[in-house]
Amino acid sequence: MEQIDNLLCGYKIIQDTQRFMFGIDAILLADFSKDFVRNGDSVIDLGTGTGIIPLLLNAMTNAKHFTALEIQEESVDMAKRSVELNNLQEKISVIRGDIKEVQSIFPRHSFEIVTCNPPYMINEHGEKNCNDAKTIARHEILCNLEDVICAADELLKPHGRFFMIHRPFRLPEIFASMNKHHLEPKRMQLVCPFKNTEPNIVLIEARKNARPRLKIEPQLIVYDKPGCYSEAVTNIFNSEKSSILAK
Amino acid sequence: MEQIDNLLCGYKIIQDTQRFMFGIDAILLADFSKDFVRNGDSVIDLGTGTGIIPLLLNAMTNAKHFTALEIQEESVDMAKRSVELNNLQEKISVIRGDIKEVQSIFPRHSFEIVTCNPPYMINEHGEKNCNDAKTIARHEILCNLEDVICAADELLKPHGRFFMIHRPFRLPEIFASMNKHHLEPKRMQLVCPFKNTEPNIVLIEARKNARPRLKIEPQLIVYDKPGCYSEAVTNIFNSEKSSILAK
Repeated sequence: MEQIDNLLCGYKIIQDTQRFMFGIDAILLADFSKDFVRNGDSVIDLGTGTGIIPLLLNAMTNAKHFTALEIQEESVDMAKRSVELNNLQEKISVIRGDIKEVQSIFPRHSFEIVTCNPPYMINEHGEKNCNDAKTIARHEILCNLEDVICAADELLKPHGRFFMIHRPFRLPEIFASMNKHHLEPKRMQLVCPFKNTEPNIVLIEARKNARPRLKIEPQLIVYDKPGCYSEAVTNIFNSEKSSILAK
Repeated sequence: MEQIDNLLCGYKIIQDTQRFMFGIDAILLADFSKDFVRNGDSVIDLGTGTGIIPLLLNAMTNAKHFTALEIQEESVDMAKRSVELNNLQEKISVIRGDIKEVQSIFPRHSFEIVTCNPPYMINEHGEKNCNDAKTIARHEILCNLEDVICAADELLKPHGRFFMIHRPFRLPEIFASMNKHHLEPKRMQLVCPFKNTEPNIVLIEARKNARPRLKIEPQLIVYDKPGCYSEAVTNIFNSEKSSILAK
């Protein structure tokens, strides 16, 4: 069922409880990338879903324009209506298209920034036959890690930045694939549910054609105790809130 | 100047204050690998220096035999004398040789375990002309990261394990190189000097011909405050101490 939710930054977003609702991942990725989006940058978000990342980054940065690419028709429709609801038609273009075909949709090397919150899970349990929206958003059914990294390479200008959120257990594949596609991991942050638990999220900034040297940020702890966000995560939520007021 | 130091496990080690003294890295690597060395395993330590890692792992495990490979003649000599001092000539063989030439020194795929605490620093400031022992141990003058990983691949039996300690800023290169050489990173631990500081050490376990899936251990904090080791690190020192008594 569709609903309209208020983002802390003041924008509204249309979501569908039966399909895919954005989670903390989108907020963490926007926060991790916001300080590196410069005035006038062109940004593309791959697999944008309901368009949450372009909405948040538009609130948080002075980028010139956002392109929100999504393959699922219903998500594209919801994202378009969210953009209209916030009167952002001139700042955010929602485009239906396949990550595997970006070279036929956009001019090569035409964006300063690529963001992506891709499906995390390897498609190894036969979800191929499962076409519901949630499964497509979570499992590598319509695109895989390599497709996403290859698309980022295709779309980025030289020295452009790629921001991705993923699962830490896939880090070796991520780095090996980036290495193959001219994207050098420059900054990484691990996110743990609780102190002393295994991290379950990794945030990565890669830069095209850059020299190797990775900076590892202090890890982020999400909860102090079950149901109670840590101060660091509370500050991230508040920075989303304050960002549009500051502009 | 040479001196004889007592290891907590009861062994003695000959070191030279003017050359290279082992540090916490060797202890962390031995601790990180000890539970995965099985009874009867053949182990080789690449670039063994004074032989600290084979000494510690011999105390901590029931491996059948250790080979300690080192290129610097003075270190080979000290390591040999340390082995004799502890009466371990039948358990630890110290061999002078070049990591880049392992294929001509050992039969291919003949070890269950490879360990390595390699030079961390990229040789980019002209240290090529600097041949003192410390510089060779710390900078990639006589071998680089790729040489080490390539040697591990050459030496390991199928499904054998490679344990390496390195600097986190080189993680993308490490993973990309392992990917190229059939070594799959399976477990990793970041080590930070203090809570909330950037990690400065990474421990990695890679397995030959394994399926991809990395487990990230909770990070290890070395100091609670300057000069005061954390409980976790104190426990590691104590486990070194208790290991030989338990055998």
